[in-house]
Amino acid sequence: MTIPLLDLSDRWFAGEGPEARTVVSSRCRLARNLAGVPFSRTAQPVQQEAVARRIADALSVEAGLKGFQRIELSEISTAERAILREAHLISPELERHADHCAVYLADNARISIMVNEEDHLRMQAIETGYRVREAHRAIDEIDSRLSRHLTYAFSPQLGHLTACPTNTGTGLRASAMLHLPGLVLAGRIDRIVKDIANNGYAVRGFYGEGTHSAGDLYQISNEVTLGKSEEEIISGLLGVVDQLIEHEHASRDELFAKRRPFIEDSIWRSYATLSQARLINSSEAISLLSRLRLGIDGGHFNERLTHHDLNRLLIEIQPAHLASRRGLTDADDESRDAMRAEFLRQRLADIVSSN
Amino acid sequence: MTIPLLDLSDRWFAGEGPEARTVVSSRCRLARNLAGVPFSRTAQPVQQEAVARRIADALSVEAGLKGFQRIELSEISTAERAILREAHLISPELERHADHCAVYLADNARISIMVNEEDHLRMQAIETGYRVREAHRAIDEIDSRLSRHLTYAFSPQLGHLTACPTNTGTGLRASAMLHLPGLVLAGRIDRIVKDIANNGYAVRGFYGEGTHSAGDLYQISNEVTLGKSEEEIISGLLGVVDQLIEHEHASRDELFAKRRPFIEDSIWRSYATLSQARLINSSEAISLLSRLRLGIDGGHFNERLTHHDLNRLLIEIQPAHLASRRGLTDADDESRDAMRAEFLRQRLADIVSSN
Repeated sequence: MTIPLLDLSDRWFAGEGPEARTVVSSRCRLARNLAGVPFSRTAQPVQQEAVARRIADALSVEAGLKGFQRIELSEISTAERAILREAHLISPELERHADHCAVYLADNARISIMVNEEDHLRMQAIETGYRVREAHRAIDEIDSRLSRHLTYAFSPQLGHLTACPTNTGTGLRASAMLHLPGLVLAGRIDRIVKDIANNGYAVRGFYGEGTHSAGDLYQISNEVTLGKSEEEIISGLLGVVDQLIEHEHASRDELFAKRRPFIEDSIWRSYATLSQARLINSSEAISLLSRLRLGIDGGHFNERLTHHDLNRLLIEIQPAHLASRRGLTDADDESRDAMRAEFLRQRLADIVSSN
Repeated sequence: MTIPLLDLSDRWFAGEGPEARTVVSSRCRLARNLAGVPFSRTAQPVQQEAVARRIADALSVEAGLKGFQRIELSEISTAERAILREAHLISPELERHADHCAVYLADNARISIMVNEEDHLRMQAIETGYRVREAHRAIDEIDSRLSRHLTYAFSPQLGHLTACPTNTGTGLRASAMLHLPGLVLAGRIDRIVKDIANNGYAVRGFYGEGTHSAGDLYQISNEVTLGKSEEEIISGLLGVVDQLIEHEHASRDELFAKRRPFIEDSIWRSYATLSQARLINSSEAISLLSRLRLGIDGGHFNERLTHHDLNRLLIEIQPAHLASRRGLTDADDESRDAMRAEFLRQRLADIVSSN
């Protein structure tokens, strides 16, 4: 089984969403479990298999849920699993497991449904730009349709029951991936991140749970899923993100007004290095791409480079994507850094010459 | 009085000297004082004036010493003095003084004679590449001719008397400016510099006395001027430089054999930054130019960039040269860094497109 993932041109990040200067993408996911079956990690193989079958049946009988591509994790290679994880289509948790695990993809991978992750069902919708409500509506619709055919583990007191208590209640995690170079360069980000964290929101890096921020990218999501309605969770997140957008805009305006040469220097140096380096690791590449993104927003590239180009590059420079492009499944760090540098040189030259 | 210094195309560094991969330039200078007159800094103005006149007379009557351009330090601006110092044509000591101070330049500034520096006479010859003997011959010839018309302060026991005892004896300082990226990248340079210093040689940076090495450039010169003949001093220096050249070649060969991707990455990143930065200070510029020099030696620029180009750039990126190009006499650090970046972008684009 081969996943046609390398043509990324029509994926979720193809469009320019609202507030694209500051919000890279929006996501919502719901965690659900089937009643009367142990959670995935404690279920017997036969129970996991039954869960997978019941979900497959539900998806196939519900008319509004056609068009899903089903990928069995046990039928694809380790490298392909890594590609799915790098593309944010499966979690690291699902990547580590294969038996009776699957992912369903639809709508150019805007929608993904993981089966037998730590919860039986993890449904996710991802959108470009600032569209948390749209993502929520999309996933809520799928949840409603599936619930006609599946009986969820649900407690009147607690709400939806989940493998990890942090998801219990609504099972909803809503998030926005923000690009905050203005707050970073102004030295204000640490304080703001701390305030946000103290108010019940998690702040993560681009590469998900457990990662540090890189390239001035910060994923903000709700910590609390219990004792609030889905609407309250979404509204709360939007309130925080609205404020961040406002602060970021103010910081950028001030920086461009007062420190324009410094900012422009940083943007053009980043472009230069990405266009000429012969070795570059992920972490440096993402930092430099982040500066290009700021350059796009500052009008430095005359539309020859777009947010879409950068969204793609952030996915494509990851190890498994790079390796698959070369047909390699294994490479040492230096070879990978050389591949990444070559890829970036070529891609930037193509983008700039073709647009 | 305006000095036509900005056309640098025919200056001493125009040629490619021997061992140009490793030896940027070679210099010899002789310190001399007139008998019966106090050294410059303790002489009365009338005595300084007399010294200047006697030297002017000697230069004008001696047939072999025609064609010198005389520049009176008191007749040029502070900015012009800085340009002469940056071009290695006068010392910082002469730059700080003006009255009765002069410099004579000949042979495209290969030869310079400073008058009323701390010694009455400082004669210098500078050559591209590894040509210490040629520089010595040139300056020895001038010394011989001048000595027919001037009586030097000389002691049969000590030799030539000088303001600073470190120059007493021969008054000869012979030096070579070496480019040692191989030894720097291999981490061997500190040990080698220490050994050289322990053996009676001074190690300085590109910008002369009191400066640290920058851009992997090291000026090696004799410390001892007393108790040795000029020939012994020159031979001793050549012995040290020969060894350094050999070590440097071995280090580079090893680096290119074992760490080629790392070296190439460093070269192309330097080129990229120099071609795109919007702000760049002297110290960074010289480091990056140093990597381009290594790139030239490694054949990375297909002769589109030459040692001559880089020798010029090293002079031209200095503050007074930059400012004069823009007709500015005063600029803050950021404006200067912006000018330097703009100059480098334009120059590199011109060089690469024209060759």
